Amino acid sequence: MRTESIAYAPASVSNVACGFDIMGFALERPGDTVTLRLSDRPGVRITKITGNSSPLPMNPAENTAGAPVIAMLERLGINVGIEIEIHKGLALGSGIGSSAASAVAAAVACNALLGAELPNDQLLSCAIEGERIASDAVHVDNLSPCLLGGFVLVRGYSPIDIVPIRTPKSLWCTIIHPHVEIKTKESRKSLPRTVCLSDVVAQTGNAAGLIAGLLYEDFGLIGRSLHDVISEPVRKHLIPGFAAMKQAAAEAGALGCSISGSGPSLFALSSSPEIAKRVGDTMSGVLEGLGCKHSLYVSPISQKGARIISTQDHAL
Amino acid sequence: MRTESIAYAPASVSNVACGFDIMGFALERPGDTVTLRLSDRPGVRITKITGNSSPLPMNPAENTAGAPVIAMLERLGINVGIEIEIHKGLALGSGIGSSAASAVAAAVACNALLGAELPNDQLLSCAIEGERIASDAVHVDNLSPCLLGGFVLVRGYSPIDIVPIRTPKSLWCTIIHPHVEIKTKESRKSLPRTVCLSDVVAQTGNAAGLIAGLLYEDFGLIGRSLHDVISEPVRKHLIPGFAAMKQAAAEAGALGCSISGSGPSLFALSSSPEIAKRVGDTMSGVLEGLGCKHSLYVSPISQKGARIISTQDHAL
Repeated sequence: MRTESIAYAPASVSNVACGFDIMGFALERPGDTVTLRLSDRPGVRITKITGNSSPLPMNPAENTAGAPVIAMLERLGINVGIEIEIHKGLALGSGIGSSAASAVAAAVACNALLGAELPNDQLLSCAIEGERIASDAVHVDNLSPCLLGGFVLVRGYSPIDIVPIRTPKSLWCTIIHPHVEIKTKESRKSLPRTVCLSDVVAQTGNAAGLIAGLLYEDFGLIGRSLHDVISEPVRKHLIPGFAAMKQAAAEAGALGCSISGSGPSLFALSSSPEIAKRVGDTMSGVLEGLGCKHSLYVSPISQKGARIISTQDHAL
Repeated sequence: MRTESIAYAPASVSNVACGFDIMGFALERPGDTVTLRLSDRPGVRITKITGNSSPLPMNPAENTAGAPVIAMLERLGINVGIEIEIHKGLALGSGIGSSAASAVAAAVACNALLGAELPNDQLLSCAIEGERIASDAVHVDNLSPCLLGGFVLVRGYSPIDIVPIRTPKSLWCTIIHPHVEIKTKESRKSLPRTVCLSDVVAQTGNAAGLIAGLLYEDFGLIGRSLHDVISEPVRKHLIPGFAAMKQAAAEAGALGCSISGSGPSLFALSSSPEIAKRVGDTMSGVLEGLGCKHSLYVSPISQKGARIISTQDHAL
């Protein structure tokens, strides 16, 4: 057991255009940082929340970083006092896995603090307890890439079947986050309950094509596969300047561009940092023209995912 | 230009459980053989049809092997007389790409006969003219693996985007063809017009999983991905002994088993010829118990697809 453990977990993009509820990838930055400290006072407490945060619950059972810590202590049957400090690099409701990043960082930090050496599937299972607070239906398409890095396929949900997808190192991502609010729960309600067969064929073809494109490192195929016939058509009107940003991204050389998760952020994939930056500038220009405040991130795809950034042991 | 050219094109399995209308693979055997001969008599004629055939049209414009030859001559603006002999190794309406095999063999043979050296996309485009005779909607998920060999993903249809998928050499296929008739056109009518969102998620997850499984040569993942939530539920009752055969295949060690194309054949994939043979024996036993006549094939996945097996040149 250690006295302190600090973990970082990155932003992630789920759905990835053609992979509704089955695909996600992790960025290198931005991300959330969670610090856990052993405390003489029993119980789990959140002592500080800093950074890019709307007001977040200080009750650990209602906090996406608190719940995974409680879950891990219960599962291991360990009864110690733990203080949690959360630094939010991600804005809530941005659609780039803010709750997943806090939950995963907390699970990874707690694992190190307790010296538990839990494997990834059990870390994921604890992190799910955090994600559950943010969304009725728990999807692991943010959690699993956030934990593992790279692209991840969630082949199935019963049982959860996570398949890491080898990701080309030169793939970069642009994220633009218009500062408008879309609640995940509400955004899911706008989804169609059924999909016509021709759209199912298009979606499965593109999802399969994206996997092949990633594993073949075929950027052309990746680009041709990045189309969403399910959620983008019903969600795009919630995002200011959507069509113009998508067109700008394509003209600036992006392989593809769509909604990140349930929005409002858009992601664009590019084959180099230079293109990714240019894509960001043109998309940003569209929102500036609309007078819409926004944040812009340009990052490689994370090959590592969540990680411990520091630990302190008991003084001997 | 040559005086004679003989091409072989193999059986193929489309849909492949999770890849409705987007995936197919080629077997090494059985297959159709098409012989083309230059003739002094103008026009295209079918002179002989042998083998495993129900009565087939002798009018080349109405025959799946004739139409591609007519199409190729028209496109190349060549006016020569051609005689066609067809040897059917595949039974019509078996669901293992009988019309595709004849169409592809004819296109490949004609290409060699004329010395046209057309690339694969143009051969496919001519072969489509043959497939069009057998089915209202032209799907290339039999034609393209039959032409190219291995697994093929049809990422999209407009334009047609064919992605060959590297296929593990130790993958074997068992085909069992119960001698009952299911017309492709009628079988398609039984398909659902819409699919509920959770089934779309399952289908895309499995389609993406199958591609990853093939490219990683991960037989466990291939097996976990071989589920069909779209066509199997509405088509399985058309096939005698379906549930018992599927269970028998699993018990004999198959990775997965589902309907080949629109049926009535079932395919099962296995990781060795020994397992594939055992799977065939147990499935065959089920149909024997029901008194249902059937054919059984055990074959590696074809790595080559259609090919020229002999040519004769003009005597000098």
